Amino acid sequence: MEGAPPPTSPAGLSAYVALSQLLGLTLLTTTGAWLGRYRGGVAWHGQLQFNVHPLCMVLGMVFLQGDALLVYRVFRHEAKRSIKVLHALLHGLALVIALVGIVAVFEPHRAKGIPNMYSLHSWCGMATFVLYLLQWLLGCGFFLLPGASFSLRSCYKPQHVFFGIALFVLSITTCLLGITEMLLFNISDSYSHFVPEGVLANTLGVLLVAFGMVVGYVLTRDDWKRPPLAEELALSLDFKTLTEGESPGG
Amino acid sequence: MEGAPPPTSPAGLSAYVALSQLLGLTLLTTTGAWLGRYRGGVAWHGQLQFNVHPLCMVLGMVFLQGDALLVYRVFRHEAKRSIKVLHALLHGLALVIALVGIVAVFEPHRAKGIPNMYSLHSWCGMATFVLYLLQWLLGCGFFLLPGASFSLRSCYKPQHVFFGIALFVLSITTCLLGITEMLLFNISDSYSHFVPEGVLANTLGVLLVAFGMVVGYVLTRDDWKRPPLAEELALSLDFKTLTEGESPGG
Repeated sequence: MEGAPPPTSPAGLSAYVALSQLLGLTLLTTTGAWLGRYRGGVAWHGQLQFNVHPLCMVLGMVFLQGDALLVYRVFRHEAKRSIKVLHALLHGLALVIALVGIVAVFEPHRAKGIPNMYSLHSWCGMATFVLYLLQWLLGCGFFLLPGASFSLRSCYKPQHVFFGIALFVLSITTCLLGITEMLLFNISDSYSHFVPEGVLANTLGVLLVAFGMVVGYVLTRDDWKRPPLAEELALSLDFKTLTEGESPGG
Repeated sequence: MEGAPPPTSPAGLSAYVALSQLLGLTLLTTTGAWLGRYRGGVAWHGQLQFNVHPLCMVLGMVFLQGDALLVYRVFRHEAKRSIKVLHALLHGLALVIALVGIVAVFEPHRAKGIPNMYSLHSWCGMATFVLYLLQWLLGCGFFLLPGASFSLRSCYKPQHVFFGIALFVLSITTCLLGITEMLLFNISDSYSHFVPEGVLANTLGVLLVAFGMVVGYVLTRDDWKRPPLAEELALSLDFKTLTEGESPGG
């Protein structure tokens, strides 16, 4: 916040961010309502352990991952170093919660003798989680730890941004596959009669798509990108002169 | 092709486009192999009519839609008007094929008394189709027909691009939901034993994701965007002067 006065936020950005958060909280509430009202609730031990899985995945791989992507737009007036740390922390928290969610599906499978990793949902989910972990490690290595040169960072940054959004989209897709699986496993006989559980879970799917669309829109609008602060511009010019590389802006 | 000599294509673009086409053709072959080997084949009349649905959706809503999005990158040296027409024609063809695919699922449902539009797959699919049709109509109205001013086009273009990519992603997501539904309807007892049909259909899902990632990567790389031809730049400056709007470049 030192140096030049902070620039104003672009018109409309705050409204879209607020909408994303409203959708995100509605997602969590709807997931909780589905599990609580129709699937017996959530518990770590016993029959209800499986229900920890959807809750953790929607919280970690969707809501927190989405918010981690938004921090550069929301905290646009803060120092870049602080935003980077928050970005890494939110993604890290999402990873830990997702890991709990994965354990919550493998344990009941083991107890009941159900095979793992046979469905498209599990293939997409495991690929997404492993690539998300890799992306987090690479992101920390390139942008948080010292060592990577300015030109190396500038080469990697577009890939980091593309795969960041792609993995977020893939996470949402995997959730939709999970909803479909869970409905067809549990209410395959009544699903086609528009029973309330089916309609609620479908609505959760639509909300997940809406959350992804709003976050994606905020992230990809060129004029909503965070402009570098005055001191960052000066610093990047110094680095560019020293390393003869490009300013990564990231 | 008149005026300045055509610029060279950026390094790597051709390889990624070739990879996308290889994946696209593999998608179609894999869909055909699944339906032919395990679902009895494809026919318009009788029991096999339903199988027209996945084939049409993968061909229209994925392969052709993806290729329609790529034309501005592939035919970068051609006149913009020609690329626009090709873009609209490919999307139009995708819409017609998708419509055939939709009829192919409603007719067998009617014959067998199965309710329509109850699943998350059908909700996502119908929303995607209706929005895709709307996007096509708006695109033709704004960019192909005369009437829309330069400044109106420049306002709408970023929305057209965002929703174009979002609908492509949503189409692929809907296909993945359809694969999961079809497997759980047909081989729910054996799916968890890694039977060949399940593995093949899961692989189709992974190929769909890979196609989406490659097309998305080509579309979102800033340095692979089509630069305006010299005469287009001159023309847009004339229009800008006349209308006091911005050059839309689209």
